[in-house]
Amino acid sequence: MIDFSEKNITEAVIERFRNTPDPRLKTIVNSLVRHMHAFVRDTELTFDEWRFAVDFLTRTGHMCDGNRQEFILLSDTLGISMLVDAINHRLPAGATETTVLGPFYVENPPEFPLGFDVSRGLKGEKTFVQGTVSSAGGGPLGGAPLSGAVIDIWQSDSDGFYDVQRTDLAEPTLRGRFRADAEGRFHFWSILPQPYPIPHDGPVGQLLEATKRHPWRPAHLHFMISAPGHEMLITHIFVQNDPYLESDAVFGVKKSLIGNYTSEPPGVAPDGTKVDIPWRKLDHPFRLKPVAG
Amino acid sequence: MIDFSEKNITEAVIERFRNTPDPRLKTIVNSLVRHMHAFVRDTELTFDEWRFAVDFLTRTGHMCDGNRQEFILLSDTLGISMLVDAINHRLPAGATETTVLGPFYVENPPEFPLGFDVSRGLKGEKTFVQGTVSSAGGGPLGGAPLSGAVIDIWQSDSDGFYDVQRTDLAEPTLRGRFRADAEGRFHFWSILPQPYPIPHDGPVGQLLEATKRHPWRPAHLHFMISAPGHEMLITHIFVQNDPYLESDAVFGVKKSLIGNYTSEPPGVAPDGTKVDIPWRKLDHPFRLKPVAG
Repeated sequence: MIDFSEKNITEAVIERFRNTPDPRLKTIVNSLVRHMHAFVRDTELTFDEWRFAVDFLTRTGHMCDGNRQEFILLSDTLGISMLVDAINHRLPAGATETTVLGPFYVENPPEFPLGFDVSRGLKGEKTFVQGTVSSAGGGPLGGAPLSGAVIDIWQSDSDGFYDVQRTDLAEPTLRGRFRADAEGRFHFWSILPQPYPIPHDGPVGQLLEATKRHPWRPAHLHFMISAPGHEMLITHIFVQNDPYLESDAVFGVKKSLIGNYTSEPPGVAPDGTKVDIPWRKLDHPFRLKPVAG
Repeated sequence: MIDFSEKNITEAVIERFRNTPDPRLKTIVNSLVRHMHAFVRDTELTFDEWRFAVDFLTRTGHMCDGNRQEFILLSDTLGISMLVDAINHRLPAGATETTVLGPFYVENPPEFPLGFDVSRGLKGEKTFVQGTVSSAGGGPLGGAPLSGAVIDIWQSDSDGFYDVQRTDLAEPTLRGRFRADAEGRFHFWSILPQPYPIPHDGPVGQLLEATKRHPWRPAHLHFMISAPGHEMLITHIFVQNDPYLESDAVFGVKKSLIGNYTSEPPGVAPDGTKVDIPWRKLDHPFRLKPVAG
């Protein structure tokens, strides 16, 4: 078949993918072609706009390195990440809701004993975090504590930067792995998260600026929790009353994920630590969805 | 608004772009969000597939440098480039059809006198190219020669490589700029183009392989022709009987763009050059679309 035209090109491209051995890959490329072609048709994209798009994607790729993932920022700010998250986590009643992974997770963080202070002395409002990990749903395991659940946590510092964005830290900071005890309980010390702008010195920042969108995210603490027989939970617990809860640049907020970081007077914390200044406390339950079958 | 869900996230993202000052940019980002979200919904893209896509785009960006444009290859192999081309060139009857720019054009090539041999002695079948540039359409200029039209040409060598892909050439080769004479005529010497695979040692090559598509393009000579009062013409003239005319990896073939590269016996060429071996000749008319208004 030759003589491709505005009318027949989409079917011609899909026909060309007919021998794709993997049926899932075939479904995905066919759908991608249909939707990208529909976008070009709907906008009647000009040649110069196409060239701008090629350059925008190239610059986005060139911003990416071991510590910066500009394509995740692009996906996040277009709401694509949250849509993928929603589609993949149709949860039973009672299960903890999910939100975006974000670009700052690091695989296999160092494991610490319960009670460890991940702030390693960085300035900020001293915060005690405790919680429980249990099985969601109405089955035989419903409500059962998940002993030994692996809890990865990470957050930004009081200036809004994650450790991987800083060059002055010798070891992972404000991030770590904990294991729940026999009753599914865990606790650690940190500092209160602060709102921060996503990195906006690249193409994604230019897109936000050109469309009059701000780059801020409300303050939050990231959790990734795994336990045998359950789906991995990737979520945040947001700080209540943050000014950006209504306008998170990456659309990550859900009401059920707004935590209650209480203000506590000097005294003795739940783990027996004596604190001689005001501090904050978060106590949050996490309920994981059992794997189907 | 908070509590974004699978149902409401698309409208929420579009609402966030409401203050975009440039109405064209607003149209484009809104359409992009709708179509990308529809793609994610239709495929129910998994989290691992989303991570693969982020990595694929990142690797595509990292392949791009001054001499390699992997995003153009991606656009070309998905038929997006030809669709953009078709939408932007709804031509009057008689105008020369357009096709893809491709990734190997270089701005402002060196200008040569008519009759110059752009092959600079590279091996290949000696080929004489001549043509005319005139105005298309039925207006007062219809058929009039376009004196002084600027004609940029470029092609691959007999191994399928463009000069920018080779490190051993001291100057631009198989590419150059000519100016039509007072009657809109031009001519130059080159070698017969050969079919070649698009660069397939990167992510786009992996996509072609995973979908059992070949990377070959039928042999062709590129033209970019400009004249005052007319739309720039970007096209190829393909070599007749090429085995890849029916399956061009980038969907660029149109019947009207298949040229007749005739086989000529030793003798005297139209420009008076004595040729003592068999040679090829292409004689092709180009008709440019007048600018509207």
